[in-house]
Amino acid sequence: MTVVADVTDTIRALRQEVCALHEQLTRYQLVVWTAGNVSARVPGHDLLVIKPSGVSYDDLTPDNMVVCDLAGKVVEGEHAPSSDTEAQAYVYREMPEVGGVVHTHSTYATAWAARAEPVPCVLTMGADEFGGEIPVGPFAIIGDDSIGRGIVDTLRGSRSAAVLMQNHGVFSIGPTARAAVKAAVMCEDVARTVHISRQLGEPVAIGQHHVDALFDRYQNVYGQR
Amino acid sequence: MTVVADVTDTIRALRQEVCALHEQLTRYQLVVWTAGNVSARVPGHDLLVIKPSGVSYDDLTPDNMVVCDLAGKVVEGEHAPSSDTEAQAYVYREMPEVGGVVHTHSTYATAWAARAEPVPCVLTMGADEFGGEIPVGPFAIIGDDSIGRGIVDTLRGSRSAAVLMQNHGVFSIGPTARAAVKAAVMCEDVARTVHISRQLGEPVAIGQHHVDALFDRYQNVYGQR
Amino acid sequence: MTVVADVTDTIRALRQEVCALHEQLTRYQLVVWTAGNVSARVPGHDLLVIKPSGVSYDDLTPDNMVVCDLAGKVVEGEHAPSSDTEAQAYVYREMPEVGGVVHTHSTYATAWAARAEPVPCVLTMGADEFGGEIPVGPFAIIGDDSIGRGIVDTLRGSRSAAVLMQNHGVFSIGPTARAAVKAAVMCEDVARTVHISRQLGEPVAIGQHHVDALFDRYQNVYGQR
Amino acid sequence: MTVVADVTDTIRALRQEVCALHEQLTRYQLVVWTAGNVSARVPGHDLLVIKPSGVSYDDLTPDNMVVCDLAGKVVEGEHAPSSDTEAQAYVYREMPEVGGVVHTHSTYATAWAARAEPVPCVLTMGADEFGGEIPVGPFAIIGDDSIGRGIVDTLRGSRSAAVLMQNHGVFSIGPTARAAVKAAVMCEDVARTVHISRQLGEPVAIGQHHVDALFDRYQNVYGQR
Repeated sequence: MTVVADVTDTIRALRQEVCALHEQLTRYQLVVWTAGNVSARVPGHDLLVIKPSGVSYDDLTPDNMVVCDLAGKVVEGEHAPSSDTEAQAYVYREMPEVGGVVHTHSTYATAWAARAEPVPCVLTMGADEFGGEIPVGPFAIIGDDSIGRGIVDTLRGSRSAAVLMQNHGVFSIGPTARAAVKAAVMCEDVARTVHISRQLGEPVAIGQHHVDALFDRYQNVYGQR
Repeated sequence: MTVVADVTDTIRALRQEVCALHEQLTRYQLVVWTAGNVSARVPGHDLLVIKPSGVSYDDLTPDNMVVCDLAGKVVEGEHAPSSDTEAQAYVYREMPEVGGVVHTHSTYATAWAARAEPVPCVLTMGADEFGGEIPVGPFAIIGDDSIGRGIVDTLRGSRSAAVLMQNHGVFSIGPTARAAVKAAVMCEDVARTVHISRQLGEPVAIGQHHVDALFDRYQNVYGQR
Repeated sequence: MTVVADVTDTIRALRQEVCALHEQLTRYQLVVWTAGNVSARVPGHDLLVIKPSGVSYDDLTPDNMVVCDLAGKVVEGEHAPSSDTEAQAYVYREMPEVGGVVHTHSTYATAWAARAEPVPCVLTMGADEFGGEIPVGPFAIIGDDSIGRGIVDTLRGSRSAAVLMQNHGVFSIGPTARAAVKAAVMCEDVARTVHISRQLGEPVAIGQHHVDALFDRYQNVYGQR
Repeated sequence: MTVVADVTDTIRALRQEVCALHEQLTRYQLVVWTAGNVSARVPGHDLLVIKPSGVSYDDLTPDNMVVCDLAGKVVEGEHAPSSDTEAQAYVYREMPEVGGVVHTHSTYATAWAARAEPVPCVLTMGADEFGGEIPVGPFAIIGDDSIGRGIVDTLRGSRSAAVLMQNHGVFSIGPTARAAVKAAVMCEDVARTVHISRQLGEPVAIGQHHVDALFDRYQNVYGQR
């Protein structure tokens, strides 16, 4: 009984949080119409909370978020879940440290993805956040595990919390849904700034030892303890 | 009597809907000043509802929308209808499956249109939405049927719901006015992302069988049933 | 007495209008901080109403607008007038058909101005609004009549309602302040779209007879009568 | 006693001002997430008021601003101060004329910084505000005095109120925090316009005597006295 009450409260809180985090996607113009979503793992349960498919950001409420199991099957909710649910469920199954996943087609990041070109690490912000370049994942078609597998295989070989799926868009991860949203925001910001820098010449490289030092400090010291 | 009451209710609802949909054009910055409009067919009647000409988006109300017949003649309304009414009426006459038409000069799409260059299909979003490239229609001058004909001739040979009229801007269609607005939003997003990608190299092509699979799935599975 | 009352009412209305029109400059992101302004002629009087110098757009009120004579001298108002008052007063003196003047440093238009390159007429919107290319005026330093003279000399030889002052920014004119604001908005939109089009190739030219036909129709038929 | 009351009032006012000025950073899109900050010197005291580290702009209040001494040690406040506090404290120690410091990673300015390329003075706005090019400071890693030293060394050799720190972002200064924010806004605007101008050719240079005349007039005559 207590366990059930617990998970009910947790899910209620996560519905609220996941719903509210979508405001960051529109605020930073990472998404248009309904093309992007946030999900969160329900800690300690094989469940996730995700945006309903094809519903406008204006119409999102905690109540219309969808709860699925980690096979992507709906457990609670009136709506069909995001068509990215399978891919995100795969990430939660394979990466137990991940508590949130975000998907966008943000403009500049997707422009790099269309060329299958990683974003080089030429900004201290890139070193801080991603610990190196933002990597590219394979071309993968929706409908089976191939997007999920592409995300996991790429991120496991990288310090980055974001991956550019070829010809597609961005998936980002984090220990929480909020951290994954932050990674999506920073991914677009870094992709945009490096793109613009490269339009008029070649950015200066940052030495690997500096990248390492920046990443280490930022992950351990930045923000409130 | 019932028929008349019916169409009155329908028109009242469409005035509301068409008026409200203009907010999406400004929200996604597809239009400036008064340069863009939405129309809807009145189902079962040879009528359409459209924005008044040269009126600011801030000043639009359901009441100042204009009802025209499919020859473009005003049937109901105090204002002159959009100067694009003739072109849109032509589309409704020739394409009975169309329930809404949108016209914008959105920046990136119009930039491709000025070069008379279709937007290639190098993004899964482009395959999902447009089933291939976004095509270019002919240069056509306002004042007779030539814009309408250019739109219809181009879209009939394409899976795309949007056409880039050379040196001019975008016309998009859909089964409803809302769907046509969505196509206008996605057209600009795809045009922008592909433009930016091409600034620094050549995007990777997507195989035609993948484009077909993505288009088919998106048109049939995406969203709420 | 009646005359005085008349002009008092007119000035009160113009203070309101000029103040409110600055919202269009910020809405379309034509200005940052305090770098741009609107003025209006007081019809039938050698007076103009203009933004105070260096005051934030958030802090503008009808009351802090400044009334100057056409020599640029303050006639009514607590604040120093815009540093562009002399240039704008020159335009009102030399072009009696002008009822409003706007100055911005809007990004894309100013980018063309920095290269002293006119914006070619490759969009129907450019033909509609400007009747041809948007011309470049001379480099001129603030502090005497040279900016005003540069504006007037350039616009007299053109159908355009906007001029790109070299290395500086945009001045636009109109029969009313609102029309001048519209010209500033359209100038940036055209400058932006043509810039982006040219980044990936050469836009298609529009034949002069088409430009003439579009300009003529738009000036005479568009909008509400 | 009076002295203590005085500084308490001053600090209270500065908490309010510094907090409110962050709205200008988000309004002009100079920052994303938490990546940028404003600080102010407490006049007559070896103290500064600065943003807390890693706190969202939405969550800033006068109360959560942090007061530090000019060694960067927290004197008053519940939160850890911005990780840029050391750099900014260095500026206040070395440049007594500075009353405010701002740090951003604004897109276009940072794009120039990534190439270690100063923004040339080809706009009258650049001459007005910065009196010449916007200079580049050295690559410097966070954690000691090297960022602060880089800022001070670069700005001392320049009329500019902004410096592009290589691979990093912008630091701007002013006699007040508000003036430093203005410099950050204008820096991005100039960096963006010159970038866009250079995409399609070479901007026209402005003669040094004109740059000098513009800078001199703007610093002495512009705005309200």
